[in-house]
Amino acid sequence: MEKQAIGFIDSGVGGLTVVKEAMRQLPNESFYYVGDTARCPYGPRPAEQVLQFTWEMTNFLLHKDIKMLVIACNTATAVALEDIRKKLRIPVVGVILPGSRAAIKATQNNQVGIIGTEGTIKSRMYEKMMHEKDREVQVTPLACPKFVSLVESNEYQSAIAKKVVAETLTPLKNNHMDTLIMGCTHYPLLRPIIQNVMGDHVKLIDSGAETVSEVSTLLDYFHLAESSESKTKAERKFYTTGSKQMFHGIASEWLNMDHLEVEQIRLGTGL
Amino acid sequence: MEKQAIGFIDSGVGGLTVVKEAMRQLPNESFYYVGDTARCPYGPRPAEQVLQFTWEMTNFLLHKDIKMLVIACNTATAVALEDIRKKLRIPVVGVILPGSRAAIKATQNNQVGIIGTEGTIKSRMYEKMMHEKDREVQVTPLACPKFVSLVESNEYQSAIAKKVVAETLTPLKNNHMDTLIMGCTHYPLLRPIIQNVMGDHVKLIDSGAETVSEVSTLLDYFHLAESSESKTKAERKFYTTGSKQMFHGIASEWLNMDHLEVEQIRLGTGL
Repeated sequence: MEKQAIGFIDSGVGGLTVVKEAMRQLPNESFYYVGDTARCPYGPRPAEQVLQFTWEMTNFLLHKDIKMLVIACNTATAVALEDIRKKLRIPVVGVILPGSRAAIKATQNNQVGIIGTEGTIKSRMYEKMMHEKDREVQVTPLACPKFVSLVESNEYQSAIAKKVVAETLTPLKNNHMDTLIMGCTHYPLLRPIIQNVMGDHVKLIDSGAETVSEVSTLLDYFHLAESSESKTKAERKFYTTGSKQMFHGIASEWLNMDHLEVEQIRLGTGL
Repeated sequence: MEKQAIGFIDSGVGGLTVVKEAMRQLPNESFYYVGDTARCPYGPRPAEQVLQFTWEMTNFLLHKDIKMLVIACNTATAVALEDIRKKLRIPVVGVILPGSRAAIKATQNNQVGIIGTEGTIKSRMYEKMMHEKDREVQVTPLACPKFVSLVESNEYQSAIAKKVVAETLTPLKNNHMDTLIMGCTHYPLLRPIIQNVMGDHVKLIDSGAETVSEVSTLLDYFHLAESSESKTKAERKFYTTGSKQMFHGIASEWLNMDHLEVEQIRLGTGL
């Protein structure tokens, strides 16, 4: 019998930061990943379009008999999580709640910052989730519309990235936050630069990495986890709507994998 | 309408380390806590007796209409979690899986130590859980039978505690572990001493604190979480089978609460 995989969906390559952590913490699990690189970024798009695109990725993976779905994209989580969770029988996990929870766990002074795409910040989902859990937490949001493109264009280690990040984060510099949520799965690729700009006293929360703890909890709770005893090998398959070469370049470097199975797919009618 | 509480059970005061973290991360939730102080420690007891005692605490809390049960005791988790989970309709959470998960997340060199009571170490549950998740992890277990009494007798900051901890942990000192699971909810009260003996390069995992992340995940997943919008105040009630004064002393200091509602109760027929 083949292993059932966990499905990951993202607007592009950002969700690979979640997959990287999942590969480390859940080495026995098989993963299928869909990156909608051709239509990335989702951040500036209207909600109904994000919902539609997210469903297209979801339906693609449902045909592959996944056992759990991870919406590894903050913009898509903000818009589509509740709708998809209601309609699917398998567990569906987003990245916003795990990030919110980790921030509440980490902060000592109840001052938390949140950076994300325009869509995520406008949705105010992180603030809502955190305030529902703890009304004392003060949240400072900041949209960083230029960050995703730096990553998708593979420029996330460049001098221009350093300049853009420093300029964008300036409004947060005089704030007393001790915790900053990277509320976009693309941002951990910019982590060294973000940490450098914010200073070592600010704890960065990688909402994607935190999501893996939630995935692991639910796999165990619903008895869906693969054991090390399993004889079949864990599979990892990657699908992109954009350039296979570009995706392969970023993914193989970020995941430190030479042999990466990447396939180009078409979603919806617009492609 | 009254809030439904989350129930915590432990062999004594150790589970208070879980409640402390729960109060911080889940301030809107009500908690009932049962510490079976009169029959503590559970570690050296036969499994069937631990199972019986754990069911007695569970049944006491079920009469109080709890919405979730946390077995905040490693010994009881190792013996009773599966049985109780099978028979209860509410979610039941133990401390071993969250601790195992956090250790796998934390270790960089796949060398993990685990300290606990004789019962927990003999059950080999931590090793089993970690190996099921990741066969590469090397686990070094050590039973520390003297630690629980140091805490229950309120001597956990004493010179004798320092001596006992240093002597007990000697076998772990030449090991290359970078992560050590405190696999007993009493041990976080000894944390500063344990950290000092092991050195700063060893990351201590508080399995109880990690359990709170799992509790929060399941509260959200099953739509059981209390919102900050709720008008009713969160309740915290403590029940002990032993000395009310002794329990109050440790609990009020550890939880930093002056007004603590503690009630002495009888469980089973032996008391």
